[in-house]
Amino acid sequence: MKMLINVPETVVADALRGMAAAHPELTVDVENRVIVRRDAPVAGKVALVSGGGSGHEPLHGGFVGPGMLSAACPGEVFTSPVPDQMVRAAAAVDSGAGVLFIVKNYTGDVLNFDMAAELAEDEGIQVAKVLVDDDVAVTDSLYTAGRRGTGATLFVEKIAGAAADEGRPLERVEAIARQVNDSSRSFGVALSAVTTPAKGSPTFDLPAGELELGIGIHGEPGRERRPMMTSGEIAEAAVDAVLSDFDPRNPVLVLVNGMGATPLLELYGFNAEVRRVLGERGVAVARTLVGNYVTSLDMAGASVTLCEIDEELLGLWDAPVRTPGLRWGM
Amino acid sequence: MKMLINVPETVVADALRGMAAAHPELTVDVENRVIVRRDAPVAGKVALVSGGGSGHEPLHGGFVGPGMLSAACPGEVFTSPVPDQMVRAAAAVDSGAGVLFIVKNYTGDVLNFDMAAELAEDEGIQVAKVLVDDDVAVTDSLYTAGRRGTGATLFVEKIAGAAADEGRPLERVEAIARQVNDSSRSFGVALSAVTTPAKGSPTFDLPAGELELGIGIHGEPGRERRPMMTSGEIAEAAVDAVLSDFDPRNPVLVLVNGMGATPLLELYGFNAEVRRVLGERGVAVARTLVGNYVTSLDMAGASVTLCEIDEELLGLWDAPVRTPGLRWGM
Repeated sequence: MKMLINVPETVVADALRGMAAAHPELTVDVENRVIVRRDAPVAGKVALVSGGGSGHEPLHGGFVGPGMLSAACPGEVFTSPVPDQMVRAAAAVDSGAGVLFIVKNYTGDVLNFDMAAELAEDEGIQVAKVLVDDDVAVTDSLYTAGRRGTGATLFVEKIAGAAADEGRPLERVEAIARQVNDSSRSFGVALSAVTTPAKGSPTFDLPAGELELGIGIHGEPGRERRPMMTSGEIAEAAVDAVLSDFDPRNPVLVLVNGMGATPLLELYGFNAEVRRVLGERGVAVARTLVGNYVTSLDMAGASVTLCEIDEELLGLWDAPVRTPGLRWGM
Repeated sequence: MKMLINVPETVVADALRGMAAAHPELTVDVENRVIVRRDAPVAGKVALVSGGGSGHEPLHGGFVGPGMLSAACPGEVFTSPVPDQMVRAAAAVDSGAGVLFIVKNYTGDVLNFDMAAELAEDEGIQVAKVLVDDDVAVTDSLYTAGRRGTGATLFVEKIAGAAADEGRPLERVEAIARQVNDSSRSFGVALSAVTTPAKGSPTFDLPAGELELGIGIHGEPGRERRPMMTSGEIAEAAVDAVLSDFDPRNPVLVLVNGMGATPLLELYGFNAEVRRVLGERGVAVARTLVGNYVTSLDMAGASVTLCEIDEELLGLWDAPVRTPGLRWGM
């Protein structure tokens, strides 16, 4: 598999150099692998720190900025960052109002953020944590005890980020982040396997005429292989998987997320089918986001995330945000 | 090749339905294939209309909104829209201040926009046209007499859109659009072929260990095949191809554009190399945009576009814009 890289060993460092060049509004510490809002710490405001393996861009580094994350810690591709990065990030962004760690539910991330929280608290930083585990496809998997954290991470980071930006205290920002996760469900589909730079060939085998339902964002196995389906059939499978796990009575935010290699033309067409199915199931849509946000390198496919909201969460969703990957209102 | 579609025949209509569902701020006429700012016509302001074959999303429909295009006309995949779409778009957005057609230099687009301009003028709409032909890789090609229009289209649409938004007259908006095109150069590289829904298999053959330098955005042949190169070598080839054709004395806008299937992680790494080479060649960078903006469906690869700017163009670039694909400041 051909890649636009120098050597696999420098992929993350090269990307960080490129981010630094493109985004003067961020402080990118290439050596220590921490991306920070240039204006951090912001006096009186709770800070949000997230991170995880690289390969899911724009998540997380592309979500650093006013109204969303204060800092992000990128690990190697599909590999958790280390506690030292997280402690460094927390120290860089803490204004004294405390830090919320947003952790996708993968074994390595959970362990390392736990350790980092202890170390940061030893340094006098108040830390709260929220776990994102929205993927209904499988319980337990290759890298996970419990459900995987996928598309809802974007909703948690955006909405909690807006709450922090409004000056709410740590306890409240944490509660809102937890509410968003608890109100969110995701389901993903892969049309092709993912190839990591280190391996250089597809990490799993997906035959020509088949797709995988319930795939993870690292190419972890899903629920089942099936002969190729239409966009409409895939939308039905994904939405029904999500709705079999929760029953939103209020309007939802919809994320139709590309895994990386599926053209935007197809993602919009898929969104039409997702919207049709939601309508048939009686689910009202408040806002929709279509694009590549929580990706899996060069994997083709898409995921659907629904987040049931109330007036407060909708207001926080609509609040201004200014990051490389998500931006409106400023 | 697996795709997230229903049937090839409805790909464009399905995508338009999905855009309509996701973007209530746009008026999407699915039947007639015209995407219009919901608040059009805007009194006293020049309107901008562009369009072209589908498959390059977010270009052009994703660039409709305040500060950029007034309307876009999507054709079938890699096929020019028809004059009727363009006339309909012009009529929908003209406030009496006139309409600028922004036309990528492909034979079908040029012919159809020419015919549409005549028809629109017959209806009393004042029309100006600007041709985008920034790709230095080849003169004449499969679909083109003269150079192809590629990445610079984004710069033309954004900067001319800001000029129109400021209330400048048609003649001036046209002159600015022409200046942006004349000050821009692009060069693209493909690591994989593109697959159209209608064909269902790659439109050209690119062997495993090779890349194509100077590729077009429809998979048209470029300058040459070469054994696979590193990101740094590709950056040197692309930047030097551009700089062999013009010699910017002022700072440039840089677009590091993904062709669709190249992960953002790789695009950022590529941007680091582009920046390094520009530094070595003595070219100053004013602003950088990294991402998938002028795509070629599922093609892997990237292009580099430079646009030499002055204070006026930089101010127009930085001006607020609110479209699905490009958004800042509002």
